[in-house]
Amino acid sequence: MKSIKNIKNVKLPAPVIKRLPKYYRFLTEVYNSGTKRISSRKLAELMGNTSSQIRQDINWFGNFGEKGHGYLVSELREIISGALGVNNAKKIVIVGAGNLGKAVGSHVDFRSWGFRVTGVFDKDPSVIGSKIAGFEVRDIAGIAGFCEDNRPVAAVLCVPRTAAEETVKLLMNCGVKAFWNFSYYNLKEEGITVQNVRLADSLMLLSHGIETEKYSD
Amino acid sequence: MKSIKNIKNVKLPAPVIKRLPKYYRFLTEVYNSGTKRISSRKLAELMGNTSSQIRQDINWFGNFGEKGHGYLVSELREIISGALGVNNAKKIVIVGAGNLGKAVGSHVDFRSWGFRVTGVFDKDPSVIGSKIAGFEVRDIAGIAGFCEDNRPVAAVLCVPRTAAEETVKLLMNCGVKAFWNFSYYNLKEEGITVQNVRLADSLMLLSHGIETEKYSD
Repeated sequence: MKSIKNIKNVKLPAPVIKRLPKYYRFLTEVYNSGTKRISSRKLAELMGNTSSQIRQDINWFGNFGEKGHGYLVSELREIISGALGVNNAKKIVIVGAGNLGKAVGSHVDFRSWGFRVTGVFDKDPSVIGSKIAGFEVRDIAGIAGFCEDNRPVAAVLCVPRTAAEETVKLLMNCGVKAFWNFSYYNLKEEGITVQNVRLADSLMLLSHGIETEKYSD
Repeated sequence: MKSIKNIKNVKLPAPVIKRLPKYYRFLTEVYNSGTKRISSRKLAELMGNTSSQIRQDINWFGNFGEKGHGYLVSELREIISGALGVNNAKKIVIVGAGNLGKAVGSHVDFRSWGFRVTGVFDKDPSVIGSKIAGFEVRDIAGIAGFCEDNRPVAAVLCVPRTAAEETVKLLMNCGVKAFWNFSYYNLKEEGITVQNVRLADSLMLLSHGIETEKYSD
């Protein structure tokens, strides 16, 4: 019997959660290629995982693979996309409109990954008024009023580390509860969700791998 | 007795390696603030780690803290920086000069983290000849000759996933052995060092955290 659980009631283990975006990316590709059904073995091959891990992971969402027929790609993709909320365009603001904010605002396809940018903010008068990804950069001084009107749930933090703590406090006071953190500030505040992106750390680890001739993943 | 090990002979465990960039960032900050000595307790406080973990990690590099006096900041920083090779400007090329390549080339401070960009490449005639971070974008067709002359050890991979495998093969044939991978291709090739940056995955995990109201790290 097929049965799909309500994602709100499923408490996924952290390692499973971390693999969801990869599932979503691969399933989207398979879906776009026109494939209707896929076996756990075939999906495992594509993703470079084991098929038993894939079956175990997917089992968290209910029982809906069919013995010998594999998974319906559209169904599985929809379930993973629901768990990730990628079709639910949550409002996000970009705070910090320097090189990094500009790069993130112009490059990242927020719409495809669950968000919709609603504003870009900075405190630097030389940047305020310029345009990033179609948005006029606003003065951070007006963020409280903006949040009252627009209720963004998340912020991209592109400010320097030294300004980050103060910025986070300000945003939390405005009801922002999730941070995509490109600054090097360690967010320790309670009751928020955080994803850190540490490009410099990644680059230094690459450097270390080369220096030690540790040529492996 | 003080004794510092040669980093080339130290086989660090993976979790210690992963923490090195954080040590380097914090020690640089402490160093720049003019502080001469720091205890493991104080460093732990700053970094949000435990002091025993910090002592254990640093012990891998030898024995050079002084009981009651802590570590000499400049010395400790130099050791970590040596392990990461951040002062050894290794040659790196950027492959893929679209939005992402542009963003990475313009924003990332390669010089501070162990690298020196020596060229930017693309196959798209509409991009070749344009400028990114002071470099004229070259035709990827000329990469073999360029590598023969310039011997880059690493490449930033900013090409689409579908072009990644072919690009990696080409670069490996040119002697490139390390990849900072912004594409969503899983590099499985042997004998290379890889750091993956998956911005979309990070953003989807933020989305999941918001959707499930799992407001924590």
